[in-house]
Amino acid sequence: MIDHLIERIKSTNAPIVVGLDPTLKLIPQYIQKAAFSEYGETLEGAADAVWRYNKGLIDAICDLVPAVKPQVAMYEQFGLPGLAVFHKTIEYAKQKGLVVIGDVKRGDIGSTSEAYAVAHLGKVRIGSKEYSAFDEDFATVNPYLGSDGVKPFLKVCQEEKKGIFILVKTSNPSSGEFQDRLVDGRPLYEIVGEKVAQWGVECMGAEYSNVGAVVGATYPEQGRVLRKIMPKAFILVPGYGAQGGKGADLVHFFQEDGLGAIVNSSRGIIAAYQQEKYARYGEEGYADAARAAVVDMREDIAQALASRP
Amino acid sequence: MIDHLIERIKSTNAPIVVGLDPTLKLIPQYIQKAAFSEYGETLEGAADAVWRYNKGLIDAICDLVPAVKPQVAMYEQFGLPGLAVFHKTIEYAKQKGLVVIGDVKRGDIGSTSEAYAVAHLGKVRIGSKEYSAFDEDFATVNPYLGSDGVKPFLKVCQEEKKGIFILVKTSNPSSGEFQDRLVDGRPLYEIVGEKVAQWGVECMGAEYSNVGAVVGATYPEQGRVLRKIMPKAFILVPGYGAQGGKGADLVHFFQEDGLGAIVNSSRGIIAAYQQEKYARYGEEGYADAARAAVVDMREDIAQALASRP
Repeated sequence: MIDHLIERIKSTNAPIVVGLDPTLKLIPQYIQKAAFSEYGETLEGAADAVWRYNKGLIDAICDLVPAVKPQVAMYEQFGLPGLAVFHKTIEYAKQKGLVVIGDVKRGDIGSTSEAYAVAHLGKVRIGSKEYSAFDEDFATVNPYLGSDGVKPFLKVCQEEKKGIFILVKTSNPSSGEFQDRLVDGRPLYEIVGEKVAQWGVECMGAEYSNVGAVVGATYPEQGRVLRKIMPKAFILVPGYGAQGGKGADLVHFFQEDGLGAIVNSSRGIIAAYQQEKYARYGEEGYADAARAAVVDMREDIAQALASRP
Repeated sequence: MIDHLIERIKSTNAPIVVGLDPTLKLIPQYIQKAAFSEYGETLEGAADAVWRYNKGLIDAICDLVPAVKPQVAMYEQFGLPGLAVFHKTIEYAKQKGLVVIGDVKRGDIGSTSEAYAVAHLGKVRIGSKEYSAFDEDFATVNPYLGSDGVKPFLKVCQEEKKGIFILVKTSNPSSGEFQDRLVDGRPLYEIVGEKVAQWGVECMGAEYSNVGAVVGATYPEQGRVLRKIMPKAFILVPGYGAQGGKGADLVHFFQEDGLGAIVNSSRGIIAAYQQEKYARYGEEGYADAARAAVVDMREDIAQALASRP
């Protein structure tokens, strides 16, 4: 799957993933009104608003970017109707040729991690039949429980030719509370990064592993170190845009060949119409505003990569 | 919510939570056959088998134990029908007077953690209305992302009078890979335990905090230390039974007053009928076997607590 993602990055010339993290605050009023008039102010109504919003976004950006990353929490909050739209969004994005990274940050042990891996990347056996529950292409995984939590994901990645991104150094201000603590004089995230590199050996694609890492754009220096510790790991970089990361912060996450990283932006793209810069599109032009924001982000990253020393 | 849980532990005299972690391997054949004959070998059929199985278990044990802990991964693998049964199981267990700990191990940052907290413990606002998505009483939370990930849960706990259990030292063999790494000469799980104690101050019940911790029965010595570091945290103890933890290992997790911990057993109870010890109940007596296993577990813990030095 990492080979397919890289191919898509090359063909779009955009190492960008759009985070589909819909909250009602981000969804244009006219969409909410249409959904509520059909289903009322209910979980079904909210889920329908999310679906209309996502469909417009996917249609507007699917030729520009290689991938989308729906954040499952935003769907889980709307219960079963929300999770039905999570599933529908995954299916629709794949139909449109997008790679889908399920931002689920799951992690448990043994048979439980296996069930998560099956739910998001694999197939569950029921009697003589097999079914996929959510069927993302990649999933994000939390490493706190160690190898017992990660190995069931590796197994499913091998069987299904899928991939994972493991949290190493997250983009949030307090990520250092545990991740930066020094272990034998080195921060914990480096130790986790080393394990990511080891786990990745079992799931290699052509150049990169199907086991990638999450490292926040807000920590460029840490990104530089981790890039070296995990030379075969693709890095999923959150924190660009709304969280404060800029193009120039990103260069350390890439290899010399311009590959090795894919940068996420969520609100900065999907709610671009709420920013002054894209206000001219208006609420009804939210999808065109998202498209314009992707074009600007692509340019920002290309310039940063072109001007690196 | 912690006060209510403690009250239920006192009235049942059983510091026990039964893990409702259904896989098809554990569910009696006659239940699977009945479900598949109605819905086919489909996700709906598997979910219906899980529901029949859970209902039988809940009916059999609801007067003996204070709480159940459904593991969401086991439901997620069956997609939307599975998650519908997760929800139905939570509702049914609460109707039967049980406290429900959602074993979801969620954790993210900012608005995303807020969405998880809302999904599992809180209410989501849709226009002028509010809805609960899954509405567990407690949820388990992964701490790797630090305070940014935990605080949205604290806020919802305060508003909704609910609780969380934060992973500190998990029961699995490889939990030490990161959790045991020495930070300033002390294992990381102690640092996490200190933060749990700090976070807990904001969510106190009468004697204990609504912020508890997960510490595996398989690590009794670590449990002893953590018991002191987090004097107000209730400890949720997995790893008893099938994972190898014994009654005598548990005593360090409890306080002098016999409170302070609640011990989970999943397979050891819900699939007791598959053990030689309870084979006499047969497949059709799986619920009675579970009941017998709870009685034995209660006795094992009571004896261990009575005979501690």
